[in-house]
Amino acid sequence: MHATGSQDLKVWLADGTNYPGQDDMRGRQDRLAESLQEIYAGLGENQRLVLEYKFFEPAFYHTDVPDWGTSYAQTLALGEKAMVCLDTGHHAPGTNIEFIVMQLLRLGKLGSFDFNSRFYADDDLIVGAADPFQLFRIMYEVIRGGGFGKDSGVALMLDQCHNLEEKIPGQIRSVLNVQEMTARAMLVDTAALGEAQHAGDVLAANGIFNDAFYTDVRPILAAWREERGLPADPMAAFKASGYQKQINEDRVGGQQAGWGA
Amino acid sequence: MHATGSQDLKVWLADGTNYPGQDDMRGRQDRLAESLQEIYAGLGENQRLVLEYKFFEPAFYHTDVPDWGTSYAQTLALGEKAMVCLDTGHHAPGTNIEFIVMQLLRLGKLGSFDFNSRFYADDDLIVGAADPFQLFRIMYEVIRGGGFGKDSGVALMLDQCHNLEEKIPGQIRSVLNVQEMTARAMLVDTAALGEAQHAGDVLAANGIFNDAFYTDVRPILAAWREERGLPADPMAAFKASGYQKQINEDRVGGQQAGWGA
Amino acid sequence: MHATGSQDLKVWLADGTNYPGQDDMRGRQDRLAESLQEIYAGLGENQRLVLEYKFFEPAFYHTDVPDWGTSYAQTLALGEKAMVCLDTGHHAPGTNIEFIVMQLLRLGKLGSFDFNSRFYADDDLIVGAADPFQLFRIMYEVIRGGGFGKDSGVALMLDQCHNLEEKIPGQIRSVLNVQEMTARAMLVDTAALGEAQHAGDVLAANGIFNDAFYTDVRPILAAWREERGLPADPMAAFKASGYQKQINEDRVGGQQAGWGA
Amino acid sequence: MHATGSQDLKVWLADGTNYPGQDDMRGRQDRLAESLQEIYAGLGENQRLVLEYKFFEPAFYHTDVPDWGTSYAQTLALGEKAMVCLDTGHHAPGTNIEFIVMQLLRLGKLGSFDFNSRFYADDDLIVGAADPFQLFRIMYEVIRGGGFGKDSGVALMLDQCHNLEEKIPGQIRSVLNVQEMTARAMLVDTAALGEAQHAGDVLAANGIFNDAFYTDVRPILAAWREERGLPADPMAAFKASGYQKQINEDRVGGQQAGWGA
Repeated sequence: MHATGSQDLKVWLADGTNYPGQDDMRGRQDRLAESLQEIYAGLGENQRLVLEYKFFEPAFYHTDVPDWGTSYAQTLALGEKAMVCLDTGHHAPGTNIEFIVMQLLRLGKLGSFDFNSRFYADDDLIVGAADPFQLFRIMYEVIRGGGFGKDSGVALMLDQCHNLEEKIPGQIRSVLNVQEMTARAMLVDTAALGEAQHAGDVLAANGIFNDAFYTDVRPILAAWREERGLPADPMAAFKASGYQKQINEDRVGGQQAGWGA
Repeated sequence: MHATGSQDLKVWLADGTNYPGQDDMRGRQDRLAESLQEIYAGLGENQRLVLEYKFFEPAFYHTDVPDWGTSYAQTLALGEKAMVCLDTGHHAPGTNIEFIVMQLLRLGKLGSFDFNSRFYADDDLIVGAADPFQLFRIMYEVIRGGGFGKDSGVALMLDQCHNLEEKIPGQIRSVLNVQEMTARAMLVDTAALGEAQHAGDVLAANGIFNDAFYTDVRPILAAWREERGLPADPMAAFKASGYQKQINEDRVGGQQAGWGA
Repeated sequence: MHATGSQDLKVWLADGTNYPGQDDMRGRQDRLAESLQEIYAGLGENQRLVLEYKFFEPAFYHTDVPDWGTSYAQTLALGEKAMVCLDTGHHAPGTNIEFIVMQLLRLGKLGSFDFNSRFYADDDLIVGAADPFQLFRIMYEVIRGGGFGKDSGVALMLDQCHNLEEKIPGQIRSVLNVQEMTARAMLVDTAALGEAQHAGDVLAANGIFNDAFYTDVRPILAAWREERGLPADPMAAFKASGYQKQINEDRVGGQQAGWGA
Repeated sequence: MHATGSQDLKVWLADGTNYPGQDDMRGRQDRLAESLQEIYAGLGENQRLVLEYKFFEPAFYHTDVPDWGTSYAQTLALGEKAMVCLDTGHHAPGTNIEFIVMQLLRLGKLGSFDFNSRFYADDDLIVGAADPFQLFRIMYEVIRGGGFGKDSGVALMLDQCHNLEEKIPGQIRSVLNVQEMTARAMLVDTAALGEAQHAGDVLAANGIFNDAFYTDVRPILAAWREERGLPADPMAAFKASGYQKQINEDRVGGQQAGWGA
């Protein structure tokens, strides 16, 4: 990190056990705390350790950092330069993710996002593909909690696995989805929302919130891009560029990268 | 509490919202912290506040204290007399509950249990009825983490809802199940287990752990009861007592208790 | 049914068991088949029996009709006048509901819908409130499979429980959400979609599908209502009518309806 | 199959889609029916087609055969030689698997099992490792429904993935777990159980059922093995044989098998 000027050391541990009794969960948690402490001690002044949690997989009985609570407790013990990384695919079925976003921002511990979407487990699909309304709600809490913008200290990253679609346009789609849901979240009339919430008017508050989600922001965003000399439709522009076609041809006969198995 | 000599103030809040935008989750969390602080200030020297969390229900979009992380963060902010209450039915599907038991004991924040079992949501069935192996694993972590016994500071309580079965024998069955799984957990050969774990022998460690679970402890417990002048078979003894029959007859024509609806 | 001219006999059974061994699941399934047969025999020529399934609740170990497969097998054994009722809140976490819609329409067995939305279990919230994109996908499959319109034989019903919001505007909101998502589903450019699907162009096909979902249909629907002499904004019109205020006042001191407990 | 004398053609399809709109689910289901029909037409008199279903993975939006209902509908359309394969790891969280076992046996469509266990998704762990009580309940329904024994037409197979443990002793453990839970299921006093069920005595029926599960059958099974000249403790016998050690040494420097990636 010192050599490369890297600011964030993101730690995701695949560690855990597959069978009850296989190892001592408590001893492992203590050793995790000790080893993180050693790593933390080596951080420079403007460097951070960001600890990611994951519900399950590749371990199937217990994971050493399975939930935000564990990541919070571990990073709290380390100090102010240790933060939590929230991967949107790393939760139990039904988990209210925007609540965790709110809570971590409130506790001053949200360091970064790994964005992707999922229907079942850690599917690592295009961001927003499975549930755009959830992405909207997450971005609303990011903004509401002060986690938006370069100076917020919250790093937004993509963490997708492109099994079927081409990688570059798949990522462009993810960026567009985040951009569109962020724009919709910014459209929430927070003054009117606050009034309806204060009055306990459930339907009015929900209506104001959803009005922003139901608004089509694509024309505004296209104009915003054009103003900056960017293509109005990034997906179409990438296709028209012929870049994908060229790299596909260039790579014929090449060596596939893999996990080294 | 001062008047009655009560030691634990257990707080479970049904609060939350049903619809996105209905209320401001962050503001609610801050107000929760403030109100708990006021309550906490009134505790006597030997009194505790125990904060229970619940995944969902009766609120269906967000719950103000939905997970152990929130309960931990809130009680940590209060001080040493604030602890977490773990209800075994209040988690997302698939959650490794014994991990949370381990973590809360490690953090010194496990105050009490609400025991019951569930197949789906917060079913509040007889303890151990749905997954006795899980109850065994939970009791193993309670013992391993120092949470067992009168002086441990961990209160064990039943929290069942008897829809179909008679209440008293239903509770006797719960107590017996906890007792049997605790006895099995105590049978784990921890020295041999530690060696197998240290050697990384997955099958041996899992085998030693399961040997305890697969042992039938009912004869030993029956003898243990008889030594103390208690009935060897509490279920049979209760039935033979005729008590249930008598109260059923006595209450014919009585007024049913309810939620006041 | 004969007396009232009712066409559909909808059967939802709360039956099941709470504990393993409590009853014989197989015997119950056979008795269910027999009793449905007796009921079925009494149907008139233009009458139907519609059998609803539910994953769990109020039974917590097993439910006699827990999934569409059971409802399908039972109604198949009865005959052509027996159909399946799909309640959108009666599935396991993560279930792809539009797949079941597709399958039941394909098998000629989708009789009716109970519409509502849920984040966790059978929450019975306003339709579309939890996941509007899912509602869009469901309506797309309804249309694609020939289940839309008066003559399709598929009855659309609301099945909500209004805990917090007023009942009438809550239902208006549900109707609006179904209407909006249906309109969006109708906007899918099926010719272009078919071409992209046939070409195996994952991103293009998904893009065409989502273009319809991301389109704001509210202005078109408002105009469509005005053309028919209906209020452009039904929520505002209901509020302006003063009806809710009046019935609230009229009912002061009245007797609350309940489950008779 | 004709050449090798194979009786069962087991079909598990990894097919599905990752994104809404990616393909036409209905068209795929129809093409699936057609292609299975062609395969089915080639079966000999004593041959079967067994169709496996899976909730999700590797496809993350929709799977072409996601549930037992789909497998049932497809095999029903084929004919009597088409059956359903139940993999114990291929269900949504919380699914009552023994109910499906009961239902498929009742419908005459349970062809085979893929046995394994799971805490979260399709974890493919040692059979019975995650929830031995569930395995007991499954084996009880297999026996109760006539699916046990060579002539039952139900094939029992292991489908595990050994990530951490040695493969052979991992499989021995699975076989032992199935054997033990089967023996426990055979111990259920079905006459007494039937009486308690008939009397509606929930606690007595559950108690009789669980008495069998809580009985330690390991000594009886060890004696049963010794009577047949088999090792009383197969795990210990395998270890003592030195076979694992030998093949580990023999294979040093060998070529690892893989998916051909």
